[in-house]
Amino acid sequence: MPFADRQQAATAVSAAATAATAASLDTLLTPAAVVDLDVMEANLERMASYARTHALALRPHTKTHKSPMLAAEQMRRGASGLTVAQLHEARLMSAASDDILLAHPPVGAPKLTRLLALPAGTRITVALDSRAALEPLARAANAAAREVGVLVELDLGMGRVGIADAADAADLCRLCTQLEGVRWRGIMFYPGHIRAHVDEQDEALEQLDARVRHVLDVLDGANLQPAVVSAGSTPAAFASHRIHGLTEIRPGTYIFNDRTTAAIGACTWSDCAYSVLATVISTAVSGQAVVDAGSKALFREELRGSSWAGFGALLDRPDITVKGMSEEHGLLDLADTDWRPKVGDRVRIVPNHVCVSVNLHEKVWGVRGERIERSWPVAARGWE
Amino acid sequence: MPFADRQQAATAVSAAATAATAASLDTLLTPAAVVDLDVMEANLERMASYARTHALALRPHTKTHKSPMLAAEQMRRGASGLTVAQLHEARLMSAASDDILLAHPPVGAPKLTRLLALPAGTRITVALDSRAALEPLARAANAAAREVGVLVELDLGMGRVGIADAADAADLCRLCTQLEGVRWRGIMFYPGHIRAHVDEQDEALEQLDARVRHVLDVLDGANLQPAVVSAGSTPAAFASHRIHGLTEIRPGTYIFNDRTTAAIGACTWSDCAYSVLATVISTAVSGQAVVDAGSKALFREELRGSSWAGFGALLDRPDITVKGMSEEHGLLDLADTDWRPKVGDRVRIVPNHVCVSVNLHEKVWGVRGERIERSWPVAARGWE
Repeated sequence: MPFADRQQAATAVSAAATAATAASLDTLLTPAAVVDLDVMEANLERMASYARTHALALRPHTKTHKSPMLAAEQMRRGASGLTVAQLHEARLMSAASDDILLAHPPVGAPKLTRLLALPAGTRITVALDSRAALEPLARAANAAAREVGVLVELDLGMGRVGIADAADAADLCRLCTQLEGVRWRGIMFYPGHIRAHVDEQDEALEQLDARVRHVLDVLDGANLQPAVVSAGSTPAAFASHRIHGLTEIRPGTYIFNDRTTAAIGACTWSDCAYSVLATVISTAVSGQAVVDAGSKALFREELRGSSWAGFGALLDRPDITVKGMSEEHGLLDLADTDWRPKVGDRVRIVPNHVCVSVNLHEKVWGVRGERIERSWPVAARGWE
Repeated sequence: MPFADRQQAATAVSAAATAATAASLDTLLTPAAVVDLDVMEANLERMASYARTHALALRPHTKTHKSPMLAAEQMRRGASGLTVAQLHEARLMSAASDDILLAHPPVGAPKLTRLLALPAGTRITVALDSRAALEPLARAANAAAREVGVLVELDLGMGRVGIADAADAADLCRLCTQLEGVRWRGIMFYPGHIRAHVDEQDEALEQLDARVRHVLDVLDGANLQPAVVSAGSTPAAFASHRIHGLTEIRPGTYIFNDRTTAAIGACTWSDCAYSVLATVISTAVSGQAVVDAGSKALFREELRGSSWAGFGALLDRPDITVKGMSEEHGLLDLADTDWRPKVGDRVRIVPNHVCVSVNLHEKVWGVRGERIERSWPVAARGWE
């Protein structure tokens, strides 16, 4: 169906799934994932505005929220398309956009089958870094009489995936231009190694800029002009205009932000839209209060690029941290505070990493103040 | 409905949900959660046999598998009832057993409402450590004309929840005997602090034994005879007979085991039934191979109580570890091996902590050898 119809259908589905309630947070079973809609909307607007100002295409990574409804919000604010990590995300997000980037190589027959079964109107692009990923993709796409776009992934410092050598990258780009079934669209990289405080990113940004310039020079020398130079990640997103030649950014976390984003100064604490509502269930062990949100509600991830301790902190008392966790227990550290919560009190915890916390919840409650306005399913949670 | 009927119904449901396929693992989209059924069955039998031998009631913690079908397998092997951590687990597991222990205080009206809405034939017991948790429970149970059993939780070294002082615990036990709506059943504790190698647990076990003896003496002096003294946790489960007075153990992990269990010698590597099937998607960065299973498939948890590094290891090459992860990427460390996997190769990864990995998957594939025999949903995954 045409894109406008699909977007309308997605909106209708989301409206049906989220009948508004006037209830307060007190009625919720804990732990519960809660998003402050005012903060989220401001976060969406801030990034959209930044991208517009610098003429960068904004292709939000939907792994953070995993919700076609929120993806549609991003599209309505001018996103050029969506980024996904997995194929079930691609399928679900095709309800919100007809331009999907799978930022993960679709390796193996089961994935190629799913990829090519995406709705016919969906423009698909994939990222990959090897001939071993490219050639079977081209064969499968050709056999399915479908064209799949390709971004060649570079390693510009992250050390995870991607081709480090510009000439090697140019070779793979050229191969893309020669194979049936695929269309070479450009290059991408993930600057996830830039996670210092925003005030201390200058050197890393300059190095990144130099590496991008070098890659583009090498490609140009090989007569390869990438239509897309795709970067992004929330920690350095607002510095994207300082990197030469970028056409696109792919931040995900910015919609909600989290304790990591705040710790490195890429947002303020009041920009954190997501928290986990929890109930104090025990104060029997001195020096701590135990809540019913543990690693199965918050996830377990230490802060990187920051000296902040703990696995999360209270939304309204960021000095109170989650010092320890087991699956169903979070231990609030009360060593340096006079605050003494009681059994039955409720708190809201901002986790260190929001993407992995959201993924633990069936649904998210959207609130304004203490009032629940709506809820939505974390539709692309888990695996197919 | 009577218990036998409910068990039959649960079996019928699970059979419908898991139509057998003759496919091989190669057909699966990765990452995928895989359980070797032969190993799992041996694990179940080993713990059931241990409990029988030592006349301990076995009340498996279902947080590990979150599957009523597997809970029914545990019941068929002689489990006395089931342990759960959350109320949606209680509701789902009531299909497999009519005797449920909620090992987590149901604090707050939303939880009490759910608790008392459990099927009428389900015998409910809850663990708690405070008057603030006990009194509202008793009032709600009384108002609902339903009796809820109570185990008073002690802290015997874990430092998480529970009453450390035996006289204080006795006071709360006595209060249980005096309130309408609740029935005092005994005491419980979680010896989760015992996570040294099984060969080095003697001192901790002796200390625990001494503390349990002291608590039972104090209770006896107060004329309080607990019908239930409930302990357990997989790392020290097979030493439970060395703790005086125990009547019940509540291990969870033992059904699958994991890298932690193997690291501390509480199982062998070949007793690890659970792994995450993953595909190599990149070998571009030297010294590593990148698979499509990251922290959203394996979870992120460092090993505790062991010097083993990494977040997981290959089932058939336990020397190859997952040295790093992001959400959708796992980095296999190839620094100390000549093994060079290719893009497209598949591996099976045993995570450090199985309970939190299972919880990330919609379903689990049960295999014998390479042949898929069945699958089942991780029904109690997430939150209601």
